Amino acid sequence: MKKELDKITPLEKDFAKWYTDVVKNGNLIAYGPTKGTLIFKPNSYGIWELIQENLNKIFKSKGVQNVYLPLLIPESLFALEKEHVEGFNPELATVTHVGDRELHEKLYIRPTSEVLFADFFKNSINSYNDLPLLYNQWANVLRWEKTTNPFLRSREFLWQEGHTAHSDPLEARKFTRTMINTYAKFLKNYLAIPTIVGKKTPHEKFAGACSTYTIEAMMKDGKALQSGTSHYFAQNFSKAYNITFKNKNNEEEFVYQTSWGVTTRLIGALIMTHGDNRGIIIPPKVAPVQIDILELFAKKSPIVSEVAQQLKLELSRKFRVRLDNTDKNPGYKAANSEIQGVPLRIEVGPRDLEQGMVTLVRRDDVENKILVKVEEVKNIVAKTLDDIHNSLYNAAEKRLEERTVFVYNYEDFKKEIAEQKFVIAPFCCSDFAEEKIKEETGATARCIPKTLDKPLKNIDCLIPTCQNKTNRYVVFAKAY
Amino acid sequence: MKKELDKITPLEKDFAKWYTDVVKNGNLIAYGPTKGTLIFKPNSYGIWELIQENLNKIFKSKGVQNVYLPLLIPESLFALEKEHVEGFNPELATVTHVGDRELHEKLYIRPTSEVLFADFFKNSINSYNDLPLLYNQWANVLRWEKTTNPFLRSREFLWQEGHTAHSDPLEARKFTRTMINTYAKFLKNYLAIPTIVGKKTPHEKFAGACSTYTIEAMMKDGKALQSGTSHYFAQNFSKAYNITFKNKNNEEEFVYQTSWGVTTRLIGALIMTHGDNRGIIIPPKVAPVQIDILELFAKKSPIVSEVAQQLKLELSRKFRVRLDNTDKNPGYKAANSEIQGVPLRIEVGPRDLEQGMVTLVRRDDVENKILVKVEEVKNIVAKTLDDIHNSLYNAAEKRLEERTVFVYNYEDFKKEIAEQKFVIAPFCCSDFAEEKIKEETGATARCIPKTLDKPLKNIDCLIPTCQNKTNRYVVFAKAY
Repeated sequence: MKKELDKITPLEKDFAKWYTDVVKNGNLIAYGPTKGTLIFKPNSYGIWELIQENLNKIFKSKGVQNVYLPLLIPESLFALEKEHVEGFNPELATVTHVGDRELHEKLYIRPTSEVLFADFFKNSINSYNDLPLLYNQWANVLRWEKTTNPFLRSREFLWQEGHTAHSDPLEARKFTRTMINTYAKFLKNYLAIPTIVGKKTPHEKFAGACSTYTIEAMMKDGKALQSGTSHYFAQNFSKAYNITFKNKNNEEEFVYQTSWGVTTRLIGALIMTHGDNRGIIIPPKVAPVQIDILELFAKKSPIVSEVAQQLKLELSRKFRVRLDNTDKNPGYKAANSEIQGVPLRIEVGPRDLEQGMVTLVRRDDVENKILVKVEEVKNIVAKTLDDIHNSLYNAAEKRLEERTVFVYNYEDFKKEIAEQKFVIAPFCCSDFAEEKIKEETGATARCIPKTLDKPLKNIDCLIPTCQNKTNRYVVFAKAY
Repeated sequence: MKKELDKITPLEKDFAKWYTDVVKNGNLIAYGPTKGTLIFKPNSYGIWELIQENLNKIFKSKGVQNVYLPLLIPESLFALEKEHVEGFNPELATVTHVGDRELHEKLYIRPTSEVLFADFFKNSINSYNDLPLLYNQWANVLRWEKTTNPFLRSREFLWQEGHTAHSDPLEARKFTRTMINTYAKFLKNYLAIPTIVGKKTPHEKFAGACSTYTIEAMMKDGKALQSGTSHYFAQNFSKAYNITFKNKNNEEEFVYQTSWGVTTRLIGALIMTHGDNRGIIIPPKVAPVQIDILELFAKKSPIVSEVAQQLKLELSRKFRVRLDNTDKNPGYKAANSEIQGVPLRIEVGPRDLEQGMVTLVRRDDVENKILVKVEEVKNIVAKTLDDIHNSLYNAAEKRLEERTVFVYNYEDFKKEIAEQKFVIAPFCCSDFAEEKIKEETGATARCIPKTLDKPLKNIDCLIPTCQNKTNRYVVFAKAY
């Protein structure tokens, strides 16, 4: 590791370059030896572990149990659901050999596990008494993307994928919505990211799904990031894979299924929502280190180490705390904490200590240093971390509101999209119109929002040449 | 799920069949669609999650940080360490295509990640100030084994693999030993499994390692199970992969490396160490459900549900508790709890409640039911779970002691091995002698034990035709 920290390109100057600079620094990633793959260094993997830990608690409270299914899918098993195969086939990494020996059947590395769960469900379910089955797995998946971007789109990524089977279609539909709302709440409460919850258009829904729900977040450059999805499959997979149960009338019926997932893309989401020109800012609830304690000029004054270590001991009972007691210079120590996005740092130095004080610096507001009495620190820290979370969330929400506009004609639409806003417009949801918009403006339909304060009835679709009437609003944006 | 529980073959009658019956029941596994792969159902994955959680705390206390490296290894990268390649090549699952397109270079699915960490270290290390680097990852790995056995040997398994780089060979060697001792302690304190700690013979060491340490456990049939390993690589990988650092004299030097791991095989270890003819017995510290509360005849007496729910509420504060309030019959409920290996169950029924009592049943001693006053339950449970752990450990330790013998000649050796014991004998550690023993008796050298109370000097090797003198004892056994 180098003694000097790398410079980060200002985000106003070049957002893409800024992002690359941020992820390469702050102990976040290194590139893997295969193109398009990532190494998750301790700071990013630590965020993922805290996402896991907290989502596990939430899933468990909903009766979901964790399981683990195999990495490889035999070609013949994959082939059973046609739309699903077509959606994934060009991206499938394929195992054909073991050592020098050719296999009888190709094996695909899972791009997602619907077909594996389908096969598992088929063998596990007999009657309505066995349902619902609510399973989740944490796993790595591969999709051979043409263009890749750290966290946002890499050939291998980590995720959780929930898979459920139900005897009742209404219950299954409801569970699909429950999970998308769970994600929206999780992003708000843990990652400080506001999202728009809605349904995907037919053009954008998941391959093989009956309907797909999504949460869409706005990045600092105004572009959208799909941050979690929940799919209702109806009986699409159960018919293709013959997953049946005996209902209360003792008749064989196909089960109703859902799946839902979030990925390590969330790490990219929080970087591009909260990061600044000093690097990443990690919301306190998922920060591997919540508080950095820096010893400044400890050699000059032995009390510095004493106080710093005492604070470390006290604060570690409730928070994730790290102590920097190296003899590097104060400027380096501060910059090192900032580039790693640690939400709060406490500087312990001889001058402040003369007055029995230490300095608190919030990562989201580094210019306003806060002098605090040593004995007050433990009382103030929890609230300060909460304040950081709230102020990160409020800033992101304000941006989302300010950069979201309604339009009713295509000229305005093009203008606003060019300014990288979220644009809400009446839209017929035909594939034709959606492809035209993408071609002409670069924007895609992000979702049909769940709630809108301007309901419509039977008005013209945004696209002038389109003869369709619609009663739906759709959110469009350029997207990652 | 079926209403009747499957019968389990008695372990005295056919141990292998008993094991297969146990793992297929008790919500532990299902078979994956690719031969030799497993589905980890909630009860086995839950054990693995608790192993993860507890090992993570222990690793962290030693300064180890978690990271995640890619699944795929390019052929050219793998090829750099010759002995390592030869050790793994026939078992490597190989990706040659993406969709219908052939890749320029073959990609191997990691069978272990030494070469990935080597590449990562090479790019991360500059000077002695960066060292030691202490990393760990939780991951899936693939080894295309010819014969497979659930948990013990499957083509895909889950594990943790620690990888460290040091500036000092003594420090690296010491860390290798620290980790094997950490595993031995973990198996004792969390899984209630005693092990013999030792060094592998040259014949049995890991491909590419300078020395391999192991913990060997004895299963109920007397066979050995290698349950964790720790490898010292010296500079083998750093020379092959050119991983250097600037030492204090500003000279370039190759780093010294270690790696160490345990796998989902530990689940097999605990089944074959503690299980009985009713199924698995899970040691309390890694039991996904520690206490089952069964409502018996709740319809006849409403107080049953009241007491059961109150107990659930109280005990859930400190323990992992499940409530069975279905209307299945008491015999089914008890058998269902037993087959899943839940260490303690509390039966709440009307007759006991008339005297203000409930019945506690320890999974390791189901015949001795314990009547306890309802208000005493919460005081007694922690100690009862501790007692279960200790009695499981003591029984396993007694068996290990009773079935371990010293021998000094090959005739006795063959007799004892035929009885499936751990046999300790003076041995020269030549490849020739080791292969002869394997061929003639089916036993393999498990380890050169760390401590032995009968030190030797320069005596004859066990094998009569062998002319070598030795001062080492080696533990032999048939092994999984």
